[in-house]
Amino acid sequence: MQIADVTMFQIIKRELATLEEELLRAVSSPVPLLQEMGTHLVRSGGKRLRPALYLLAARSGPAFKESRMMPLAVAIEIIHMASLVHDDVIDSADTRRGSPTANARWGNQAAILGGDFLFAQAFTLVSGRDYGEEIAVRLAELVRELSTGEILQDSSLYQAGLSEASYYERIEKKTAHFLALCSEMGALVAQAPEAVARGLYKYGHAIGMAFQLTDDLLDITGDAAKLGKPAGNDIRQGVVTLPVLRALAQSPDRAELTAIVTDEAMTDAMVERALSIVRASDGVAYAQAKADEYLAQAKAALPEPLPEAVRRAFIKAADYIGRRDF
Amino acid sequence: MQIADVTMFQIIKRELATLEEELLRAVSSPVPLLQEMGTHLVRSGGKRLRPALYLLAARSGPAFKESRMMPLAVAIEIIHMASLVHDDVIDSADTRRGSPTANARWGNQAAILGGDFLFAQAFTLVSGRDYGEEIAVRLAELVRELSTGEILQDSSLYQAGLSEASYYERIEKKTAHFLALCSEMGALVAQAPEAVARGLYKYGHAIGMAFQLTDDLLDITGDAAKLGKPAGNDIRQGVVTLPVLRALAQSPDRAELTAIVTDEAMTDAMVERALSIVRASDGVAYAQAKADEYLAQAKAALPEPLPEAVRRAFIKAADYIGRRDF
Repeated sequence: MQIADVTMFQIIKRELATLEEELLRAVSSPVPLLQEMGTHLVRSGGKRLRPALYLLAARSGPAFKESRMMPLAVAIEIIHMASLVHDDVIDSADTRRGSPTANARWGNQAAILGGDFLFAQAFTLVSGRDYGEEIAVRLAELVRELSTGEILQDSSLYQAGLSEASYYERIEKKTAHFLALCSEMGALVAQAPEAVARGLYKYGHAIGMAFQLTDDLLDITGDAAKLGKPAGNDIRQGVVTLPVLRALAQSPDRAELTAIVTDEAMTDAMVERALSIVRASDGVAYAQAKADEYLAQAKAALPEPLPEAVRRAFIKAADYIGRRDF
Repeated sequence: MQIADVTMFQIIKRELATLEEELLRAVSSPVPLLQEMGTHLVRSGGKRLRPALYLLAARSGPAFKESRMMPLAVAIEIIHMASLVHDDVIDSADTRRGSPTANARWGNQAAILGGDFLFAQAFTLVSGRDYGEEIAVRLAELVRELSTGEILQDSSLYQAGLSEASYYERIEKKTAHFLALCSEMGALVAQAPEAVARGLYKYGHAIGMAFQLTDDLLDITGDAAKLGKPAGNDIRQGVVTLPVLRALAQSPDRAELTAIVTDEAMTDAMVERALSIVRASDGVAYAQAKADEYLAQAKAALPEPLPEAVRRAFIKAADYIGRRDF
């Protein structure tokens, strides 16, 4: 499912259609392997949430013009794509969104280099477009925080003693900062007033936190068919999320849960048991309440001087993130 | 051995000393793993050829100022470093320059993300420095060509039927383009006349071709102790270089050589035999002649209006590349 099909993004429906064409153009290469891999990645889909937020934010400024906005929208999605390609190598993942991953199809070597190529291609797309230094600074920072977030996650695998603060730091770097910068950059490129850019940064940050919390919740409560991956995937890979952290602190079965989540050789049955323990605890409700809190924060952060249609779309986007089940 | 110890770079000796400090600063991070990996990479050394060329080229322009030049010099070396980190993951290399590789020491996952972090850090370093769009364009293009060159190499492993043209295309993307842009960017940032920037691009391109040809020759003729890796490493990894291509076309033992270089499971004895066949052929002299040709081209490409000391240093740099044995 793509964001373009979701009603709140009607306002940028045409731009999202252009985005798909431009993505295919951006991954084209005279090197057959790169062309094939890029096309496969674009065609495998994705929600396009990041460029959608950017384009929506761009509707808040007076200088909105599709042709001007587009290269950065494409770059944003390509950076996201590149980071997923590297994540899938790291996690030895075979499928994503029901399609084979780049590493499954072309091997780790090609996927590592293909990811590097995509990162570079994203920077190529925005260079020479007169977006100005403030965009260049943010785009580089975005990739830096993204990889830092993944490093933080990878250095805390299979650990039961993590603090909630370290969980929030990790999801902030991994997700919230990215969404915050997408919203802010839209406002900046469209020359919206500074207060609008600031407010949209906060909005993006808060929905980013909610988005990752929801993602982590779905790993506990979600439907494997809709998710395109089995529930309990995070637990199996040693990624300890908020519902699990809460259960580790509160559940009567916390000793058993600790033994499972710290066991790098855990079996499917152990993952199932861990899921039952977390589901029986207040971990799900606790994380859900946090996500709701962030969504309320997001709505409150929306800046005053925003076109009404854009404001409504941002509010619907927050609601959509709160109730998504995939 | 670092370039700073080589006489022709005396003219930028102070800047190269500053570069070492700035590299350490650039890889510092509040995340302990990133800090440790970055420091290890900087301390493991390297010739610093790329930033040296950039700094030397910058001496050709009126706007040379160390503080202004430095961030891009650091970014250039960090991009080189990041690409080596990913290469070592791809090649499963254990050591580089006698030190353990990042993947050997921290695992593939950390090395992939650490490389991404370094790429992003390089772009962060130069953003907000008013280098202008033309530098941003070149830096992104540089990383794109670099990964494309590696992809081309990886998609032609263990193949005996490659054309010389495809060999040149690969080393151009992998090495020559990088050195060309380093030389050109130095001239651009120091506001040298356009003809100087153009001439230095050509110079860098030609010494880059010679540099990679020499590197590939050393894999055939070099001393394992000086190289820090066994001779025949390229053959073992399936990378078919010019001396081997030539022997595959000309040697009386070409059938045997073909059987070896296309065998993914070749033994040490087979690598030794392949080395003997190539050394007995005219492949070494052939590739050496090509390298010499490129070095002559490089010297001829040096632009007219160049400060005499800078011109002499560039000529010495070409001579150094021609006779290096490590």
